[in-house]
Amino acid sequence: MYAVIMAGGSGTRFWPASRKNLPKQFLNIIGSSPMLVETCDRLSPLVSDEEMIIVLGKNHQELAKDLLKDRKVHILAEPVGRNTAPCIGVGALYAQHLGCTEAVAFLPADHFIRDKKAFLEGIRIAGEVAERGGIVTLGIVPTRPETGYGYIRRNARNGLSNKEPWFKVSEFVEKPDLDTAKRYLADGNYFWNAGIFVATPDTILNEIHSCLPKLYEGLQTLKGALGTDDFPKVLNEVYHSLESISFDYGVMEKTRGEVYVVPCECGWSDVGSWSSLYDLRSSEYDKAKNLVEGEALVIDCRNSFVSSRNGRVVAVLGLERCLVVDTDDSLLVADLDRAQDIRKIVDALKESGKEKLL
Amino acid sequence: MYAVIMAGGSGTRFWPASRKNLPKQFLNIIGSSPMLVETCDRLSPLVSDEEMIIVLGKNHQELAKDLLKDRKVHILAEPVGRNTAPCIGVGALYAQHLGCTEAVAFLPADHFIRDKKAFLEGIRIAGEVAERGGIVTLGIVPTRPETGYGYIRRNARNGLSNKEPWFKVSEFVEKPDLDTAKRYLADGNYFWNAGIFVATPDTILNEIHSCLPKLYEGLQTLKGALGTDDFPKVLNEVYHSLESISFDYGVMEKTRGEVYVVPCECGWSDVGSWSSLYDLRSSEYDKAKNLVEGEALVIDCRNSFVSSRNGRVVAVLGLERCLVVDTDDSLLVADLDRAQDIRKIVDALKESGKEKLL
Repeated sequence: MYAVIMAGGSGTRFWPASRKNLPKQFLNIIGSSPMLVETCDRLSPLVSDEEMIIVLGKNHQELAKDLLKDRKVHILAEPVGRNTAPCIGVGALYAQHLGCTEAVAFLPADHFIRDKKAFLEGIRIAGEVAERGGIVTLGIVPTRPETGYGYIRRNARNGLSNKEPWFKVSEFVEKPDLDTAKRYLADGNYFWNAGIFVATPDTILNEIHSCLPKLYEGLQTLKGALGTDDFPKVLNEVYHSLESISFDYGVMEKTRGEVYVVPCECGWSDVGSWSSLYDLRSSEYDKAKNLVEGEALVIDCRNSFVSSRNGRVVAVLGLERCLVVDTDDSLLVADLDRAQDIRKIVDALKESGKEKLL
Repeated sequence: MYAVIMAGGSGTRFWPASRKNLPKQFLNIIGSSPMLVETCDRLSPLVSDEEMIIVLGKNHQELAKDLLKDRKVHILAEPVGRNTAPCIGVGALYAQHLGCTEAVAFLPADHFIRDKKAFLEGIRIAGEVAERGGIVTLGIVPTRPETGYGYIRRNARNGLSNKEPWFKVSEFVEKPDLDTAKRYLADGNYFWNAGIFVATPDTILNEIHSCLPKLYEGLQTLKGALGTDDFPKVLNEVYHSLESISFDYGVMEKTRGEVYVVPCECGWSDVGSWSSLYDLRSSEYDKAKNLVEGEALVIDCRNSFVSSRNGRVVAVLGLERCLVVDTDDSLLVADLDRAQDIRKIVDALKESGKEKLL
């Protein structure tokens, strides 16, 4: 089995720990290694190094090579970010170029998975299904009425018996409001869309042909250059001409092909904000549910996240649901429940010409 | 008129801006100069440099000399802090040694006074009263039911007519609870005790003789050494033998002598905490009542105090009544209403062997 690991994000949601040159997938924010490395490690029982293709931004290529220097993975640098559809397309093309005819798992490099075994079992089953045709998504069994994720609704069982653990997909739905999310949770036919897809390169390229003909055209141009010295130049030209579009929107919501979902209970999270990171790391809380990293004095605080990443002493007194992240050049102090608004800070820094802090 | 300016405090309430080697009286936290310099400047219309005696801790002597290098004031270094009674005693002795027989104002170096003219008028009147005998206190007309100050209750009018602006003191009362403070405010006969006393050196020394005979004894030993090369050595010996006691407790609450109060409406504050500093600097608030110093991005915050004193960017998001003070080696994040508990942080730093941050 192959894997295309999508490591192209340039997220700002973990500012000031994450930066343009060091986005979340290269940070060690949970677990013992950077998220990209954890993602490769997690796949290793199922996917050999030679079958892993990391797709990432040009400016992160050296960083990734360094992090993965002991692995013989393929690294493919996008000249410019164009969202997930081009990324998955070029990943499929590259896998095909490497001789892959079997299933490929397309998955983000910056997600957290608590139960690796359950995850791999889900991917393995998805791979089996995918090799018979169609695109298979991993459907995360919801554990709360989350409004921050899209959902996948399953249809009837697919297969000869009722025991087969996959379903046809009935529809993909956008992030719901809280009442709708509660209904989805109670319904039992809805899963979180983790943005993890499994399919053969042929299936992916055929779907792109149907749904995103311009992208397909670009990929055909690329195909001709694969393996030649011209490839970087052609890749650059083609990428700059491509539309930025997600695979969810561009293909999954439009395809008339077969789409399946394999339900998976693997303790998945997209680790989308400081506050979700705080929730995930509950095993590290102190008695007052504070999560404290580095040199910090936390006095009379509750449910707070204090991270001192530069050796300075941080003293926090009398606060609740507070987020403090101290780095060499920047300090963030925020209401932990406002963590999704960190974008406002990033925008303000841009506006005031402080790009070097991003 | 003479002045003894008490600059011996080693306050921790403005940590991390204030340090053992740089307490509040040497900081420029309000106004345009360090508080000690502002205190000298404020007195200048009434007291010449040669009549100012600064009493401070040995380890701050060079700092004070540097700050006051353009003034010909007297600087007297205490070998060790022993609270205000010894400080006032030695100040009175030193003034006497300089030939002073008139009134001396004894006052802290780290208070804020908005209306300098009203303050000086109060001190001037207190001086006139003091030269007829007794100790005269400045009684600050209360503007709110403050529970953080002691109070002075006035008795009948003192003087030939009802027009004279001073009163006999009926009693000194400790910091009240809120209900009592409200009663004091409504009553009209209570004033805040600012710890500002005016008396002749003779009066002070006689009162110490009556109320604190051991201190008087020590001062007599000192008197013999004043003006000789032995003075520093004798001062050191005497100070180490003295009991640590406040002038309020040791003399004012015990004396059978005459005690007067001159009411004064001068916008006084002891600037006792970050939160009182925030209140005082209301003219600097932004529209959401945030007080912001230095490089800070304050987004969706209200009633907060953000001070970035080291050039790093501080971003604060979605908080209310929050205090953020960023310095080179330490960072404080606190509930502004818990500012009086900064002592807890200082204690914890001591316990964990981080004395260098104090």
